[in-house]
Amino acid sequence: MTRIPVVAVVGMPDCGKTTLLEKLLPELKGRGLKVGTIKHHVHEFTMDTPGKDTWRHKQAGADAVVLASPTGIGLVRDTDRDLGVDELVTRYLNDADLVLAEGYKHTRLPKIEVYRAELHPSPLPGRDATWLAMVSADPPANLGLPSFAPDQIKELADFLEDHLRQAAKQATPTGRSYIHLEVDGQPVPLNRFAASLLRRGIKGMIASLRGCERPRKISLNITEGHNPDDHSGNHAD
Amino acid sequence: MTRIPVVAVVGMPDCGKTTLLEKLLPELKGRGLKVGTIKHHVHEFTMDTPGKDTWRHKQAGADAVVLASPTGIGLVRDTDRDLGVDELVTRYLNDADLVLAEGYKHTRLPKIEVYRAELHPSPLPGRDATWLAMVSADPPANLGLPSFAPDQIKELADFLEDHLRQAAKQATPTGRSYIHLEVDGQPVPLNRFAASLLRRGIKGMIASLRGCERPRKISLNITEGHNPDDHSGNHAD
Repeated sequence: MTRIPVVAVVGMPDCGKTTLLEKLLPELKGRGLKVGTIKHHVHEFTMDTPGKDTWRHKQAGADAVVLASPTGIGLVRDTDRDLGVDELVTRYLNDADLVLAEGYKHTRLPKIEVYRAELHPSPLPGRDATWLAMVSADPPANLGLPSFAPDQIKELADFLEDHLRQAAKQATPTGRSYIHLEVDGQPVPLNRFAASLLRRGIKGMIASLRGCERPRKISLNITEGHNPDDHSGNHAD
Repeated sequence: MTRIPVVAVVGMPDCGKTTLLEKLLPELKGRGLKVGTIKHHVHEFTMDTPGKDTWRHKQAGADAVVLASPTGIGLVRDTDRDLGVDELVTRYLNDADLVLAEGYKHTRLPKIEVYRAELHPSPLPGRDATWLAMVSADPPANLGLPSFAPDQIKELADFLEDHLRQAAKQATPTGRSYIHLEVDGQPVPLNRFAASLLRRGIKGMIASLRGCERPRKISLNITEGHNPDDHSGNHAD
């Protein structure tokens, strides 16, 4: 749903989606890919560990809590709605080569289904053109899809890399690009004309900055008339 | 360090910084403020709960993991360096009214120091003009700073609200604004001229979109020539 390739790993409960990801992730990492994952929860969740300082901040009512270290960051924050995969990738995973989403079967994302015949009488209903492949020790007959056994991790990684290459190849000749705009906290839908205008105008301005002659990823935040108690930021006017 | 007001809560180890935040956060929330917090860890950290699916994704090698729900999100991701408060606020807390940072005593952020005379012979060294106030049951004599007892939470919240009002008042007449630009994953320093040019140009373009006539916060991401396998995003060109 964004310019970063996203593949959903779907299947019935307990079919082994997380277990598949646990085997697939090190294989993809070993191939030099930067991989993000998204897991969807239907209910409220806790991600932090009870008792830790950040957990105490959140419990006490912070809307958002960041834990920062030299090697990574953690963030827990409230939202007023279920952010879509598109928005999550744009906001939080926009430097990944590939994002694997666990769940999200009711979307138009390309999908890999995990299926265990011993637990469920049949695969997910509604299989359509978004299904890329199935992972099953016992795939249904006449599947009409590439199929991998749960231990064929290298073969599945090859298949995913091929998917990425095809996606990149398709992208190159058209030179299509992606723009995501939020104003005052709300995503702004853009038609093709407005998107093209903004993209070209902004790219043109930024390309005139030293070292930014050929920008491929631009991330920009502008905040008006806030606290001037600023010691390091870039002021404008 | 950004246009969102940030106040650091500092002090010696075990002086009660987190405990103060636990009392202060509900008071500020009760006054209708949207508050984010940042906690700094010197070492690697775990934020997630061992055994959970997202924890398993991260352990297996994902560079970044998002947990999404209808009411909130969680994010754990690797970074190649210690992101500064400025960058953390711009990326993750840019809709807060106030950010309280626990730690960060070696910065130019405005500071509230927590001090326990029974644990430490003296407050932090290096007190300077960035110190706003002290919280202590037993403040040193001749402090030259506003001082609050640890249970004077309402008074401290009043003081912080006053700090926010003053910051906002100072901001209004100058109309100063803030712009943060990243190109290909790297922050781009902007001089005043370039910042003003970008801000005015981009604001002008966006103000012509319906419903965006007076944008106060603009967040924009452009990615060039990625995977075209897109189902919902805004395409340009």
